[in-house]
Amino acid sequence: MGASGYGGVQLVRLLQDHPLVEIVYLGGESSAGKPFCSLYPHLGHQVELMIEPIDLDKIASRCEVVFLSLPNGLACEMAPQLLEKGCYVLDLSADYRFTNLNTYTKWYNKERSADLDVARTAVYGLPELYRDAIASARLVGCPGCYVTASLLALSPLLKQGLIVPDSAIIDAKSGASGGGRQAKTNMLLAEADASVSAYGIGGHHRHTPEIEQVCSDLAGHDVKVQFTPHLMPMVRGILATVYANLRDPGLVREDLLTIYKAFYRNSPWVKVLPGGTFPQSKWACGTNLCYIGIEVDQRTDRAIVISTIDNLIKGQAGQAVQCLNIMKGWSETLGLPQLSFYP
Amino acid sequence: MGASGYGGVQLVRLLQDHPLVEIVYLGGESSAGKPFCSLYPHLGHQVELMIEPIDLDKIASRCEVVFLSLPNGLACEMAPQLLEKGCYVLDLSADYRFTNLNTYTKWYNKERSADLDVARTAVYGLPELYRDAIASARLVGCPGCYVTASLLALSPLLKQGLIVPDSAIIDAKSGASGGGRQAKTNMLLAEADASVSAYGIGGHHRHTPEIEQVCSDLAGHDVKVQFTPHLMPMVRGILATVYANLRDPGLVREDLLTIYKAFYRNSPWVKVLPGGTFPQSKWACGTNLCYIGIEVDQRTDRAIVISTIDNLIKGQAGQAVQCLNIMKGWSETLGLPQLSFYP
Amino acid sequence: MGASGYGGVQLVRLLQDHPLVEIVYLGGESSAGKPFCSLYPHLGHQVELMIEPIDLDKIASRCEVVFLSLPNGLACEMAPQLLEKGCYVLDLSADYRFTNLNTYTKWYNKERSADLDVARTAVYGLPELYRDAIASARLVGCPGCYVTASLLALSPLLKQGLIVPDSAIIDAKSGASGGGRQAKTNMLLAEADASVSAYGIGGHHRHTPEIEQVCSDLAGHDVKVQFTPHLMPMVRGILATVYANLRDPGLVREDLLTIYKAFYRNSPWVKVLPGGTFPQSKWACGTNLCYIGIEVDQRTDRAIVISTIDNLIKGQAGQAVQCLNIMKGWSETLGLPQLSFYP
Amino acid sequence: MGASGYGGVQLVRLLQDHPLVEIVYLGGESSAGKPFCSLYPHLGHQVELMIEPIDLDKIASRCEVVFLSLPNGLACEMAPQLLEKGCYVLDLSADYRFTNLNTYTKWYNKERSADLDVARTAVYGLPELYRDAIASARLVGCPGCYVTASLLALSPLLKQGLIVPDSAIIDAKSGASGGGRQAKTNMLLAEADASVSAYGIGGHHRHTPEIEQVCSDLAGHDVKVQFTPHLMPMVRGILATVYANLRDPGLVREDLLTIYKAFYRNSPWVKVLPGGTFPQSKWACGTNLCYIGIEVDQRTDRAIVISTIDNLIKGQAGQAVQCLNIMKGWSETLGLPQLSFYP
Repeated sequence: MGASGYGGVQLVRLLQDHPLVEIVYLGGESSAGKPFCSLYPHLGHQVELMIEPIDLDKIASRCEVVFLSLPNGLACEMAPQLLEKGCYVLDLSADYRFTNLNTYTKWYNKERSADLDVARTAVYGLPELYRDAIASARLVGCPGCYVTASLLALSPLLKQGLIVPDSAIIDAKSGASGGGRQAKTNMLLAEADASVSAYGIGGHHRHTPEIEQVCSDLAGHDVKVQFTPHLMPMVRGILATVYANLRDPGLVREDLLTIYKAFYRNSPWVKVLPGGTFPQSKWACGTNLCYIGIEVDQRTDRAIVISTIDNLIKGQAGQAVQCLNIMKGWSETLGLPQLSFYP
Repeated sequence: MGASGYGGVQLVRLLQDHPLVEIVYLGGESSAGKPFCSLYPHLGHQVELMIEPIDLDKIASRCEVVFLSLPNGLACEMAPQLLEKGCYVLDLSADYRFTNLNTYTKWYNKERSADLDVARTAVYGLPELYRDAIASARLVGCPGCYVTASLLALSPLLKQGLIVPDSAIIDAKSGASGGGRQAKTNMLLAEADASVSAYGIGGHHRHTPEIEQVCSDLAGHDVKVQFTPHLMPMVRGILATVYANLRDPGLVREDLLTIYKAFYRNSPWVKVLPGGTFPQSKWACGTNLCYIGIEVDQRTDRAIVISTIDNLIKGQAGQAVQCLNIMKGWSETLGLPQLSFYP
Repeated sequence: MGASGYGGVQLVRLLQDHPLVEIVYLGGESSAGKPFCSLYPHLGHQVELMIEPIDLDKIASRCEVVFLSLPNGLACEMAPQLLEKGCYVLDLSADYRFTNLNTYTKWYNKERSADLDVARTAVYGLPELYRDAIASARLVGCPGCYVTASLLALSPLLKQGLIVPDSAIIDAKSGASGGGRQAKTNMLLAEADASVSAYGIGGHHRHTPEIEQVCSDLAGHDVKVQFTPHLMPMVRGILATVYANLRDPGLVREDLLTIYKAFYRNSPWVKVLPGGTFPQSKWACGTNLCYIGIEVDQRTDRAIVISTIDNLIKGQAGQAVQCLNIMKGWSETLGLPQLSFYP
Repeated sequence: MGASGYGGVQLVRLLQDHPLVEIVYLGGESSAGKPFCSLYPHLGHQVELMIEPIDLDKIASRCEVVFLSLPNGLACEMAPQLLEKGCYVLDLSADYRFTNLNTYTKWYNKERSADLDVARTAVYGLPELYRDAIASARLVGCPGCYVTASLLALSPLLKQGLIVPDSAIIDAKSGASGGGRQAKTNMLLAEADASVSAYGIGGHHRHTPEIEQVCSDLAGHDVKVQFTPHLMPMVRGILATVYANLRDPGLVREDLLTIYKAFYRNSPWVKVLPGGTFPQSKWACGTNLCYIGIEVDQRTDRAIVISTIDNLIKGQAGQAVQCLNIMKGWSETLGLPQLSFYP
């Protein structure tokens, strides 16, 4: 559902190449009745489906698994029925990311009394942290792009108790595709190209509470982070620069490298780079990978961790497919791209 | 009028630096009542005016000269009254560019019976071709960006009868700011960056009849040109690559250089480059200049002329100010930027 | 050979995913002795090979097929020996593209007396035109990026005798990766970004004689084309806008569409778009596809054909792999990417 | 001196428009003997000077003021003589920025025994902090781009003792022109476009000790900062996002706005934005301005300050001209651009 947006077109693109998946239904609202290839002609030679109106009965009768890639606030009205009708549901919106629905309501302006029981069964779709729960889930709320990049950089430090939790600062830089395909003046090429800007400054971005929820879960107590997103003059990719004060001033870069490698030992989609190597954001573009580079500044006793992902793949549609692979018991890497084109 | 769009903000920017002009009225529709600096905060420290509703009486009482930078089809409803009230009018839209209003009506879907007499008095605001007429005009219809770049490249060849007129092909490349500040999906950074595309292919772009009108005027008979605009992944600038078959196969590059230099001898805003030098589009950005590079391919007996301008200055607001200078009898270069920042 | 450049890294990237190919030797000069992943760390998790000095005996003993991706003038010194030792050779440089070696010598400043016999056996590696010859070739000279985009747009018109041959004008726009990985001032981001420029104007670009050679072959007589390359502020992709005068003024768009579809009926990598649809260059990026959009301007009796490819895949490494597939009798699409990521 | 690089061309561009300055000597090494306009043809119509070899006697005989825009380590060999011959010297390199020359030697690998006495007379050319000293200086060491953006954001907080000094983290984003005009592979458009990356991570960038020197001076004791530069896919502009822990948790945004406005009351080139407004980097491009936006996150008791400048104007050549204005007793704004072109 929501095949016309950037999340939708990534899903179609990825699932088309997935050896164990067949796309049988593309749902949309405003684009219903149009052939998918009228929106994305370059996929037309491979994808001949029409976009159909969203009809939950039809969907359930045809689909075993449903991906929801809709504006926030819509998935929570569809997922309960789809689950009841026997579908697996992977939601790419914020609707099933929060364990505390008051937080959701506060940041997304939507009451959530109707699906409380369903929401309780949702699993947070970040496989590197919640792989086992995803394996047995029927409803997965997939995290967004900023959150994925931030958490993959921070989690080993928090989980091992290596940092002063509230010292974490995430300075994140994202390509403009994160803003979606809706026409907005500030996202015009004429406005956003050749320029950099920050937004949601001072904890005002919706991804702050989502990052804090998972950080608190990892640390075992409430954690506050400073998260500042920035808009970059490029299409795809996120690079997060994460700063945190080390509890133990004796730690050096090699210690952290060892810890990160161990933490991500079973995570094929996270690549911890050798000491002294740091990623460019475009290394990850076109793949489901997260690259992580690590440094310790011994003058300041700070860890500096640089992570990068493709915001629309590992940060969105690819991660959902990775969750699907886990839910179905398939290999976690199945049908997902591992090699970027460079330059 | 129309201070909120890209044409408007260029005009404000340029006129603010003009030694003989004072801005006393900024008019707008949707943005009326807002301070100008709420739309463009970076100009706020210099421009303290509010945007006011468009009230022709008020405008005429305060302004000697009125620049109209509005969507096509609005200027023709205001200009007659403003002229009657004694204002000079410089229009940046298409409304007063056409000598044959049927052509206007065909391409802009608007009947034009009401202001026929006024339209007849309008002068085409390309100073390099119509300097004298502009000097005595009260109403000037300023040409658009593509047209300016195309005509400055082609005019000497046509005027001197050096080319087969219908052989002219204009392959033009424009930055995205030419599309204006209205939010459109295809102009999003995510859509238009890292990509090139053609549009209006096959003579379907509105600038084709405008180019042909002036070419025909120069040649003394009907001329058809092939004009293909392309969208570039950049903010500002137009580069036009113009191809035309030479009538006389004996002509060489130096001949054309001589002709172009003579043609633009009294045109301070056109710089004919030395043989073998061709412009980058950004040389012109931030200036009112047009750079022209010229080559003859003796294998094919074709002239190839490359012209480049800043689409929003020489292609729009700067040209209007240049016309104003001429109308007022001031130096043609007054208050207009001559030096770009590079890189 | 030449694994460190952009052609090399594309080949490694593509062959790594090819189901019937194993990479066993990466050769280089300046980078010999380094692990490949020190040049391209983001491929390191998949490619563990070292770059080895170029030793033709060793290469021949290990490799059945050799791709040469070297500066012009080197392949012609290696290919004869590699062929003699029993290897298939696919050369990505200009060395084996010319049927007339005097043309090569004139444009590439290198005498070619030593390998005349070998050069005579080389097949031009554009499968859409020379598929059968490639199938039985042992030495293939793969065309460059501009040439591929230009010829795929022009060939049906020339082959069917539909246009005035010498009227063809190719206005091509390329991303900066076409300039290679050598550091050059004019290719710095600071110089080339936010700007467009033409070069090789007036038939002075080396791709002109290569395009003309194939056009002449198709037309059955000498053809001259006007080819003007432009540098775009983007990394990948070429878009060629091709203009040509129709012989028969009665032809309409649908006629050409029919002809193009028939011409490319057996060519899985060329997609002729429906009437009224024209490609963005990034549709092709990351794939081996060529998209073609066609228009006829009945006012001017001109065909305007827009073609686009990824300059490093269909324009370089992917085309070489496509040739390999044909030489080995495999499916022409084997191991090559068909779906781009968008946006 | 050093007219061929980006610093040089900015200086030429700015001084050409300065009403009280005449350029009489352009010095260079590799480009000596060439006309300046062969390097920058788009300035040729205004600047007719040749680049001359660097001859200190000639320079001193012709020039009252000398700008040195050379690679690090050269100015310190010329400035002593130029001063002795009676010139004012403004150096854009790092040679005269450090009060402790051991720090210079450590970071720039150059012994500095010869000009110790001269170095002691050098004034740090950041007018907003050292205006009075600049007014009476004969030798000014102008700060670099990152340092200017960082210090203008941090200084009021440090000077007023509002923050925990060692908590300051500067996450800076710069356009590629900061890397200069020398050809380097990693600065090619093909490499650096469509991507973001960090470098000098962990305090390894040369600007760290320079920032710390001034911060320590302001705070009255040793201060360590965390400075991480990032390369952006754009030509010009720096945006610095500065994080610092407030000493007094009761402070709110309005307090800081008041303090910043007071601090920069007499600084015409710093614009403190209204609460809730934050700058885009391109607002400053083409001007000598620094825009500052301020936020306090009361959840974390942190100040977040966003500053932006044009890295080549306020971050380099414009700042030098601003210093010149002060040294000569002219208005600080004389001859410097205040209005950017937008978009």
